[in-house]
Amino acid sequence: MNINEKSLVLHEKWQGKLEIVAKSKVDNKDALSIAYTPGVAEPCRRIHEHKEDVYKYTFKGNTVAVISDGTAVLGLGDIGPEAALPVMEGKAVLFKEFAGVNAIPICLDTTDTEAIIKTVTYLAPTFGGINLEDIAAPRCFEIEKRLKETLDIPVFHDDQHGTAIVVLAGVINGLKLVDKKAEHCKVVINGAGSAGIATCKLMLEEGFKNVLMCDKSGILYEGAPNMNWAQEEIARITNPSQDRGSLADALVDADIFIGVSAPGIVTEEMVSTMHPDAIVFAMANPVPEIMPDLAKEAGVRVMGTGRSDFPNQVNNVLAFPGIFRGALACRAKQITEEMKLAAAYAIASMVPDDAISEEYILPKPFDEGVSDRVAEAVILVNKKH
Amino acid sequence: MNINEKSLVLHEKWQGKLEIVAKSKVDNKDALSIAYTPGVAEPCRRIHEHKEDVYKYTFKGNTVAVISDGTAVLGLGDIGPEAALPVMEGKAVLFKEFAGVNAIPICLDTTDTEAIIKTVTYLAPTFGGINLEDIAAPRCFEIEKRLKETLDIPVFHDDQHGTAIVVLAGVINGLKLVDKKAEHCKVVINGAGSAGIATCKLMLEEGFKNVLMCDKSGILYEGAPNMNWAQEEIARITNPSQDRGSLADALVDADIFIGVSAPGIVTEEMVSTMHPDAIVFAMANPVPEIMPDLAKEAGVRVMGTGRSDFPNQVNNVLAFPGIFRGALACRAKQITEEMKLAAAYAIASMVPDDAISEEYILPKPFDEGVSDRVAEAVILVNKKH
Repeated sequence: MNINEKSLVLHEKWQGKLEIVAKSKVDNKDALSIAYTPGVAEPCRRIHEHKEDVYKYTFKGNTVAVISDGTAVLGLGDIGPEAALPVMEGKAVLFKEFAGVNAIPICLDTTDTEAIIKTVTYLAPTFGGINLEDIAAPRCFEIEKRLKETLDIPVFHDDQHGTAIVVLAGVINGLKLVDKKAEHCKVVINGAGSAGIATCKLMLEEGFKNVLMCDKSGILYEGAPNMNWAQEEIARITNPSQDRGSLADALVDADIFIGVSAPGIVTEEMVSTMHPDAIVFAMANPVPEIMPDLAKEAGVRVMGTGRSDFPNQVNNVLAFPGIFRGALACRAKQITEEMKLAAAYAIASMVPDDAISEEYILPKPFDEGVSDRVAEAVILVNKKH
Repeated sequence: MNINEKSLVLHEKWQGKLEIVAKSKVDNKDALSIAYTPGVAEPCRRIHEHKEDVYKYTFKGNTVAVISDGTAVLGLGDIGPEAALPVMEGKAVLFKEFAGVNAIPICLDTTDTEAIIKTVTYLAPTFGGINLEDIAAPRCFEIEKRLKETLDIPVFHDDQHGTAIVVLAGVINGLKLVDKKAEHCKVVINGAGSAGIATCKLMLEEGFKNVLMCDKSGILYEGAPNMNWAQEEIARITNPSQDRGSLADALVDADIFIGVSAPGIVTEEMVSTMHPDAIVFAMANPVPEIMPDLAKEAGVRVMGTGRSDFPNQVNNVLAFPGIFRGALACRAKQITEEMKLAAAYAIASMVPDDAISEEYILPKPFDEGVSDRVAEAVILVNKKH
């Protein structure tokens, strides 16, 4: 059986990868009268008096909603809420398995920005955090921004920030290897959607100065045609010399390439024009922008992809479980830029400096202690403020 | 420790009575690539092609949302969504423990009818059924009605129908004991809120002809002042001789009294005017409309309450777990009046005819097989259509 067949068989066997179980077993009258009426009234009264006690007496403090409208599902696109559910269940599984966080998949039957914002706002009392997932750009930016402004629990769009954090972790270790400094590097990011724009912003936050964003029509510059508002915004804060041209033009002398775009669109010729000791993250799925062997032959030094069958996999599971566990543990109201940077450094620190190599700039998902270290980093940042 | 203290200690220990666990353990690369990317894409594709496959490959088919706005929480009233969460968690625990159904508590930060309807509509793709809970009347009627019209999954407001079903089950057995027929009985229901109105409707459905609804201002009649639209509607289909007067007036010659109102408002004198072999369900919580010993002394033959420390407890847990399990198992689009009646008969049938007594007209929550029998009854009704 290939993986698709195996996946179908198992999914049908599971009928859902999640189960909701009772911590409070109810097998006798006394247990019933504690878990439900009349005993349950007492924690209700306490929470009614002090709303914060909801963290003390309910599952809110360790429970995240994984919310999607099914419009930008991994490699599949706009497949609707029902078809997105296996992915959101999978995400919830990873929350539990990698960080012990309860996560509940919720696929919404609306793609309207205002409706999604309102719905999540109404859902918020139940949850300790909101993980937005697979919502198409640029709607996802508006939704996340507005929810962050109004909710008092962390809101995190993993497609954006999870990717950005793990890529940055890889870049941090990659730069150690090639001995370059962020502020001197030319960075090209191809794919001006949610992951690309968020990665770009986090790179700027980290101190990269010369970042070029590209999309299907080439390099983004201020005033370029056919950009959405998020691309217009990013065009204003990138491309300092207002270069114009194609992706191929952009790559000339680039130190770092980050692809969150489409299979096979980067050629050997293109990467051969990059600066020596180039770092390439080609994360199109399932086929990267350029295959690792071709990139290496063309002179790329460090190569990462989204795939587990090549070295240096950029896998969001390195970031989001620990980030939420940390944020929940310290009851952070937001996941800040500083926390994201700290998470990237925490992930990078999982690879000891003397172990860093072309094939090993990122820890693997099952390396012991990744989510612990990320959670600690988030908690530490929160403590400082 | 009294029950309230014990409840607080345990709730704090649990920090949530529910846990979300992974059926698909993810402890190695292969498991990860099935539960999440790339393997998860295949069930997504299947569901995208055939939406009904969501029941085959996800937890939807065995998962119910327990939705409340926290406005009418058991005995506590309008305490808001956070304070209502322990109750909704408790309800979810009962779903699992009594029927193996996954249930997810969702407390909404809005009390607006249209907002609740929209929110539940958007949430629907994820769930196999919707259990509305502790939403104030008359809003709850509109919300349930509208959702039933538009959603293709069962919607059930347990405060209404759960109570109605279990009361009817008790009445069915009570009438066997006193050897009376539904159509000859005079029924008085006090409390024209969600439970009272739903119980009234189910009694009419069952064939009771002479039903009087009372509220604080006495007997409801067509054109009475200060009624909400739901009470106006019920006033039109009850009280066939258009009686007016107080609850005391209503009770004269009544065969059955059903109280879903307030502690201690029925006196011995009032029940002593009822018809011989009277059946009384005094379900105000925690103190009934009249205490069982007083009612018995005043001549009532069969007495039920909402409490577990007296005989004949009307406990919704006899109904809702089995009803949802049955409805989910046969993928019923609705929980129909016929299913509710069938559920009431199924519950009543748990007490063998030769075992029925004044103290034993209803099974107890932990009697083996209640939810099985209710589920079977629901499935059978669904099959007939």
